[in-house]
Amino acid sequence: MTAAADPGPDPGALARRILAGERRALARAVTLVESGRPDDRATAEALLAALPSRTGLRIGLTGTPGVGKSTFIEAFGTLLTGEGLRVAVLAVDPSSAVSGGSILGDKTRMERLARDPLAFVRPSPSQREPGGVARRTREVATLCERAGFDVVLIETVGVGQSELAVAGMTDLFVLLVAPAGGDELQGVKRGIMEMADLLLVTKADGDLKPAAQRTLADYSGALRLFRPRPGDPPGTPAARALSSVTGEGVAEAWAAMRALAAARRENGTFARRREDQARAAFEDEVRRTLLARLSSDAGFSARMSAFSERVAAGEIDPGAAVDALFADGP
Amino acid sequence: MTAAADPGPDPGALARRILAGERRALARAVTLVESGRPDDRATAEALLAALPSRTGLRIGLTGTPGVGKSTFIEAFGTLLTGEGLRVAVLAVDPSSAVSGGSILGDKTRMERLARDPLAFVRPSPSQREPGGVARRTREVATLCERAGFDVVLIETVGVGQSELAVAGMTDLFVLLVAPAGGDELQGVKRGIMEMADLLLVTKADGDLKPAAQRTLADYSGALRLFRPRPGDPPGTPAARALSSVTGEGVAEAWAAMRALAAARRENGTFARRREDQARAAFEDEVRRTLLARLSSDAGFSARMSAFSERVAAGEIDPGAAVDALFADGP
Repeated sequence: MTAAADPGPDPGALARRILAGERRALARAVTLVESGRPDDRATAEALLAALPSRTGLRIGLTGTPGVGKSTFIEAFGTLLTGEGLRVAVLAVDPSSAVSGGSILGDKTRMERLARDPLAFVRPSPSQREPGGVARRTREVATLCERAGFDVVLIETVGVGQSELAVAGMTDLFVLLVAPAGGDELQGVKRGIMEMADLLLVTKADGDLKPAAQRTLADYSGALRLFRPRPGDPPGTPAARALSSVTGEGVAEAWAAMRALAAARRENGTFARRREDQARAAFEDEVRRTLLARLSSDAGFSARMSAFSERVAAGEIDPGAAVDALFADGP
Repeated sequence: MTAAADPGPDPGALARRILAGERRALARAVTLVESGRPDDRATAEALLAALPSRTGLRIGLTGTPGVGKSTFIEAFGTLLTGEGLRVAVLAVDPSSAVSGGSILGDKTRMERLARDPLAFVRPSPSQREPGGVARRTREVATLCERAGFDVVLIETVGVGQSELAVAGMTDLFVLLVAPAGGDELQGVKRGIMEMADLLLVTKADGDLKPAAQRTLADYSGALRLFRPRPGDPPGTPAARALSSVTGEGVAEAWAAMRALAAARRENGTFARRREDQARAAFEDEVRRTLLARLSSDAGFSARMSAFSERVAAGEIDPGAAVDALFADGP
């Protein structure tokens, strides 16, 4: 006997259960949104449309492994839920497809937060395709906002283009760096510091406190060299030091994020950034869909790859290769 | 009487005249490469293919207006030609289409270099379309290299995405910044510092010398925070101060560029970057061509714009809009 097709949940009923605060309904909805199956997509879209539109604060978080992201999220998330705010934690991790694992693992990294009734910690989806991960994470963020979450934290391990993707779906982008002596300085991946709205030096406690203060001074000096985004208050992006263990500086970091978000809401850049992000997400997805259709034309794909290799080898100029590729179609 | 169609130059004959060092032939070839007309394109491609393959050093230069780019190029270019090197100066300026002008104007900005027999100063083309400008500037750079130029300087005024385009077609990317007191600090446009292989503080002479030294210290500190590109020697990207007027530091800047280029040639990253750039240029052009074809479908374009506005207004989710757009075609 073959398995009967799953009729799938009723989007309206699922929406009502989510709004009633049913965690299992939310978990099911996330799975639905993350699914690539066409019938799931239709249900997911209907579900998103069935939920009332609602905007929370989306915060992107990045930092190299070892910087203390999980410990920070645990401390920061617990501070937020302590204020009565509902917090969702998501992750974008294009590498999880390779490792087969998930950066949020079995939630053991954030034990306290994962058990917090006001929090929802979601392991990263294992998708093979980076664009797909971004789209689905964006939709899960929307789902969480509409489900009533006030703050959505989206974490990235900083592999490939994942920071760019996360910066493109959040209201604030926070960069975590670890304290370092002058010689050990690993440095920040190029392109990341420039996306930051706030830079946090972690582990400012115990023996590392002096190093954290020096690192803070270094980064504060560097951030001064970047022109602030239009409309942002002077001194943005700021740098602060904190300890996720003692909790020192965590509330101040949250105050800084809140103040920046409030300033942007006030001057209209918050809403404008959301609009621009939505438009960019749509147009990006249209482009990806169009290109995916063309690359499913095996002949065209093969010819394009062949030309690409000849171009890289210097056998033909890029412009001539383009013209030759299109001379015969498609 | 209608004008007879210009039969166009013979690519082989033009190539021979260029290799013989005929300036007018080179100028004509540049015009051909910059042309958007399909018959000119075919001739330009045949010409590029007729010239022997040859790689010079392509240096991208950027900096805000007033930083002293022209004075630097004049001093730097003259230093290079003084060493017997042939130097071509090109510009990418997407804004010239708007102003109708050209950032290199009538060459009066670089009087000495423009008269130098070893130099070729080319005003920026006025193209409306940024992608087109990039493609043509890349091809003009290739043309100049094959015509025997040792160094090709490509300048950008830093409007929009032009730095990214220039970084994507050069071997070294140099950022010029002006000296500034703590309060006047304008800061660097986000995303630019990370592209730099070398940062030069200009105007380190006279009254501005102390400010230039302070600015140098600030940027040196900031650059230390970036991780070097794989394979680059420690201390890369470096920062240096110079005066284009007294000439102090100009030779040292050139020595730094040469040393970095030599290190990259040695470890293979120079050639690999060229390959990657050629492949990226080709694939980018293929994508642009495909999308241009689709956007010439007026119905699809109109529906896409309408959905894009609804997405920005929050009336429909991006994912749902994509599915709705493609549900009816194209």
